[in-house]
Amino acid sequence: MNVAAYYEGKERVGFGPGKPVDPGPEEVQIAVSYRGVCGTDLHVFHGHMDHRVTLPQVIGHEMSGVVAAVGSAVTAWRAGDRVTVRPLDHCGTCPACLAGHRHICMNLKFIGIDSPGAMQSLWTVPAHTLHHLPEALGFQQGALIEPLAVACHDVRLAGLKPGEYAVVQGGGPIGMLIALVARQAGARVLMVEVNPFRIALAQQLGFDAVNPLESDLPKLVESATRGAGADVVFEVAGAPAAASMMTKLARVRGRIVIVAVYPTPVEVDLFKLFWREITVIGTRVYESEDFERAIALASSNVLPLDRVITKVLPLSHLADAFHEMQRGGECLKILMQCRES
Amino acid sequence: MNVAAYYEGKERVGFGPGKPVDPGPEEVQIAVSYRGVCGTDLHVFHGHMDHRVTLPQVIGHEMSGVVAAVGSAVTAWRAGDRVTVRPLDHCGTCPACLAGHRHICMNLKFIGIDSPGAMQSLWTVPAHTLHHLPEALGFQQGALIEPLAVACHDVRLAGLKPGEYAVVQGGGPIGMLIALVARQAGARVLMVEVNPFRIALAQQLGFDAVNPLESDLPKLVESATRGAGADVVFEVAGAPAAASMMTKLARVRGRIVIVAVYPTPVEVDLFKLFWREITVIGTRVYESEDFERAIALASSNVLPLDRVITKVLPLSHLADAFHEMQRGGECLKILMQCRES
Repeated sequence: MNVAAYYEGKERVGFGPGKPVDPGPEEVQIAVSYRGVCGTDLHVFHGHMDHRVTLPQVIGHEMSGVVAAVGSAVTAWRAGDRVTVRPLDHCGTCPACLAGHRHICMNLKFIGIDSPGAMQSLWTVPAHTLHHLPEALGFQQGALIEPLAVACHDVRLAGLKPGEYAVVQGGGPIGMLIALVARQAGARVLMVEVNPFRIALAQQLGFDAVNPLESDLPKLVESATRGAGADVVFEVAGAPAAASMMTKLARVRGRIVIVAVYPTPVEVDLFKLFWREITVIGTRVYESEDFERAIALASSNVLPLDRVITKVLPLSHLADAFHEMQRGGECLKILMQCRES
Repeated sequence: MNVAAYYEGKERVGFGPGKPVDPGPEEVQIAVSYRGVCGTDLHVFHGHMDHRVTLPQVIGHEMSGVVAAVGSAVTAWRAGDRVTVRPLDHCGTCPACLAGHRHICMNLKFIGIDSPGAMQSLWTVPAHTLHHLPEALGFQQGALIEPLAVACHDVRLAGLKPGEYAVVQGGGPIGMLIALVARQAGARVLMVEVNPFRIALAQQLGFDAVNPLESDLPKLVESATRGAGADVVFEVAGAPAAASMMTKLARVRGRIVIVAVYPTPVEVDLFKLFWREITVIGTRVYESEDFERAIALASSNVLPLDRVITKVLPLSHLADAFHEMQRGGECLKILMQCRES
């Protein structure tokens, strides 16, 4: 039976029969195995993206699955292929696309927000969005490829080098994945987070992890780097206090990577950027190579991705997932499964 | 006769006999020809740097001159050499120096603030700060090498490429020199400035130049770049409105270069950095190669540097120079000359 979870307006989700869409010539229909619930989905749930969604809408974009059917013009994929989706649909004609930056196309459609998403049994998407999942990679871990690709993109754009010292401000799923990818790239990593569960988890995963409200963070970073400061600061927290802190931590010629989504302008110490010749790098989503890197990393089993998944729920319980994420507490990544299918 | 202009405390300058310092083993004494008056000097005049200066202090750091005497260990220079000074003295042992960023040494002494400056007939400085001025370069233009090196540094760190579109926010001496260097590097340049004299001067020098209070700047830049946005925004204005505007002008993957000195944190639209993957690059002073580039550019006579000099005054009139700079109006770069010497 085809089922789907629907966003029905601010803080309301419904569950019911899905409406499978036959794939067009260049589309593929996927039988979805698992879907991760993302901060962006929570944002939709809170009604903050009502200007982009069409009610009732199936949302979601982190997933794994198996190709169920392919369109008439699709030759690269066949039924049974294990896949995940890079949920970006670009226009191909805007200045950003023409300059080669299709992943942040100026008319980008984000599949799962601007069009129906993965919280259903059968999901139809453009064939160009698919990436192959190797047999070695389980479907639960496969549903983490999308956020892991964000982390790979951020670490790549940071130009992180082995031996460098990185601070990750914010230990949610993306922050934790950035820490894992940065360590895999050879960096020493300090995790900064206020949630005690996430601090403990980061420590269990082998990271130095501190609460910024209980530590003198600039002093700690200074002492860990022989007075130099951090090579890279990943700003994933999205709070004014974190924006204020980031410029206090970076070394001369250090890099600050803006991963967090700041809804409004915040105060930034531009003097410190000038004084230390710091570079601030805005980063958003991922490119194809980041998905390939994420799949390679996940398949090689070098990252403890299972620890990032804190719960698996049936798709019908999507509201519970949102409520748990809202509460914070002992929660990192929640996956939704179609037990009903 | 040796003369000097002294900063004697907030908004007070004096003029009197100089106190020449015999060069130590690795020092050189220079007979100074011209000195430019800089925004930093004005900052000192306003008392904002009283924590760094020792009263009464000779300030100033933009200059040209001739070597008068050399220390016992100096072999690279001799009396009569035409020179300018890169007024940076680094410690050599801090993490920034060890990483090769000596120009922004964490214990940097800026000669002319942290030690006596060029507003005197005879100035003694470390020999490692000297750069040769070719015969082709007049002493007035030679006194512009220091600010021109700032512009060369900023354009180099921007990674500016031929054909790119650059916006320069702020048409003071540094902004005007950045515009000239950026155009020489092959960029199209839009100058943004509020002072009518500077707007007119920029236009006379062949630049598009607009008043941001009288233009829809984002629309103008969009239309000049076929909807893409500026490749590079040089933020030289140092005003909150300019910090707010800079993120509205840069294209997807564009660069914003922070040249201005912001005394306090200001609101910055970090969302826009994220959304368009914009990079913000802090830049400060210059490296040796920027001085060499500035000297080569100035010597080849491709820049209308004479137009940047709006007045030449005797050294005894330093207070007049500061007052004229304060008033704004028809003023860009003022040079001080020792007519008394």
